[in-house]
Amino acid sequence: MDRRSFIKKASVGAGAAGATALAAPAIAQEAPTINWRLTSSFPQSLDTIFGAAETMAEHLAAATDGKFNVDVYAAGEIVGGLEAKNAAADGTVEMAHTASYYYWGQDATFQLGTATPFVMNSRMQNAWFYQGGGTEMLNEFYHTQNVHGLPCGNTGAQMGGWFAKEINTVEDLAGLKMRIGGFAGNILAKLGVSPQQIAGGEIYSALERGTIDATEWVGPYDDQKLGFNQVAQYYYYPGWWEGGAALHTMINLDKWNELPAHYQAALTDACAYANTSMLASYDVLNPTALKQLVADGAILRPFSQDILTACHEAANEVYAEVNAANPTFKAIYDSQVAYARDAYLWAQLSEYTFDTYMMIQQRNSNIG
Amino acid sequence: MDRRSFIKKASVGAGAAGATALAAPAIAQEAPTINWRLTSSFPQSLDTIFGAAETMAEHLAAATDGKFNVDVYAAGEIVGGLEAKNAAADGTVEMAHTASYYYWGQDATFQLGTATPFVMNSRMQNAWFYQGGGTEMLNEFYHTQNVHGLPCGNTGAQMGGWFAKEINTVEDLAGLKMRIGGFAGNILAKLGVSPQQIAGGEIYSALERGTIDATEWVGPYDDQKLGFNQVAQYYYYPGWWEGGAALHTMINLDKWNELPAHYQAALTDACAYANTSMLASYDVLNPTALKQLVADGAILRPFSQDILTACHEAANEVYAEVNAANPTFKAIYDSQVAYARDAYLWAQLSEYTFDTYMMIQQRNSNIG
Repeated sequence: MDRRSFIKKASVGAGAAGATALAAPAIAQEAPTINWRLTSSFPQSLDTIFGAAETMAEHLAAATDGKFNVDVYAAGEIVGGLEAKNAAADGTVEMAHTASYYYWGQDATFQLGTATPFVMNSRMQNAWFYQGGGTEMLNEFYHTQNVHGLPCGNTGAQMGGWFAKEINTVEDLAGLKMRIGGFAGNILAKLGVSPQQIAGGEIYSALERGTIDATEWVGPYDDQKLGFNQVAQYYYYPGWWEGGAALHTMINLDKWNELPAHYQAALTDACAYANTSMLASYDVLNPTALKQLVADGAILRPFSQDILTACHEAANEVYAEVNAANPTFKAIYDSQVAYARDAYLWAQLSEYTFDTYMMIQQRNSNIG
Repeated sequence: MDRRSFIKKASVGAGAAGATALAAPAIAQEAPTINWRLTSSFPQSLDTIFGAAETMAEHLAAATDGKFNVDVYAAGEIVGGLEAKNAAADGTVEMAHTASYYYWGQDATFQLGTATPFVMNSRMQNAWFYQGGGTEMLNEFYHTQNVHGLPCGNTGAQMGGWFAKEINTVEDLAGLKMRIGGFAGNILAKLGVSPQQIAGGEIYSALERGTIDATEWVGPYDDQKLGFNQVAQYYYYPGWWEGGAALHTMINLDKWNELPAHYQAALTDACAYANTSMLASYDVLNPTALKQLVADGAILRPFSQDILTACHEAANEVYAEVNAANPTFKAIYDSQVAYARDAYLWAQLSEYTFDTYMMIQQRNSNIG
């Protein structure tokens, strides 16, 4: 018997017994049917990252016996991708799936929910979120912005992007017109890069026409779809501005507070499933895309140590400026940095040594 | 209104209206109250790994409004730690939280659910479990063993363990009496190690008396509790036999199949939460424990490349033997190896380069 037919029969019973016998509002309170809208910051074509919201919604509906439903809308269907959090905060929709750092211009603290350049990798982000007090600290801030945030997806360390020419020295960065967003663009600007804000669909032609010299996007699987290898051969790594890029489900704070506690719990767990599942998707899809990109002419290049050092110093200048101006940013940044200092100490023993050994075996075709 | 008072009132109503008005079995079918017992393979003192089952149970109860309850029992309270899966399979309890590889003696395929020496790290395990078909493949096997398995925790790459003397060459392994379990012990036996099966509580005295020369356990946080640094100074890494060690919740297959679909979904998500949360616990707790162990005299030593190579070759001999004898093992092993070959290619670009840069900064006190 499904819920609808139960309610129908129960209503008949209640009618027969008098309205007091069956307290309909109590049923509603226990397991109400809820239909929410989620606006994603991403187009459907980015199936891994857009898909994390769909995975979350599917798991949430399944765990609540179809009672808590979230309809997932792509960027632009309700509001633009960079307005997703705002739409959840102002109640246009109940939820957004977005990258917190898109809103750093409103408050730099938003940056710290997604990626803190030269601080944590994705595994450390999860440690900090789930057991290091991170989600609680972020939500103290997010609540002031009228949303509640739950980690819901990660890209892992992103690539540094596509460059029309080789970048060998720090001097090669000066004057470079690079499509790179917000906070990271501010860091690169200190080294003479001219950061450009260009929507995903227009990057290819800007590179082709030479309007820009370089672009960052995500990693092999997503980058391949946009065909950047056809117009900019050099594929640099790592994307130090996103050692891990965490996505969040952001829920209108009043709507979150009104949810029955078990729906809050089911939503938290559905987000946790999607959080792991999205990184798993990238990890399964990126290797094949990487091989195809290289077969199609992409030339892999690591940023030089000098470039990384200069970018790191520039990042620290930006941190000093923001920390001086924004105590909320500073408190969360300090927590992340304190954890990262410890985490990289531990990570360099077994994890790093095991990985290094296995990567050598990969190069020697000696796995399995 | 809680569920109990609702049912009480509803029963009164049903009595008044006649038994047909309120179909009690339909309520039970939709959201029955279920009380299950889970037997853990671990003692409460291992709070991170034992705690993963508690986290799972808390999240499951919360997401089902207190209706699906799992009482978590420590190893020995119902059955011994190495009997946990068996107790779930035979219906003594409904669930176990355990390491699949404890049962490799029954069928070597069980090894592949926890750790496959010289194959994947923990992030790759999650990729393979969640998006590489791994959980489905494992469950095809687990179902033949009367359990359904869900990933529920990971330790990350474990340490190689504690050695009374330095191990500099492959020859130093010959004759070594080492406390190391099952499959990995079989591999080391090919190099002359005499593997010993000793329960956790007895390792310290065995090391102190010289009954054994070495022991592996987990990593800094767990190892510190047992005080191994007081009786064996050299702390080696990596634990190549456990590049990641995945735990599973294993559910009696009939009990799993009888669950309402939404309880299966809530359980799956609660396990996913605990899966991430347990690794996060280790990642937050291990750094401090590591620093304390070193302050208390532990001497960190990486296994030499020669030793790793010899162990790897010995592992491949064991794989060849098992693959020849066990087609189920071979099918799953081949899937893991195929994924790992691709995964280490991708991992060595942005992730590894970013991590390497950051680890150098950690050593130079230059994070933040």
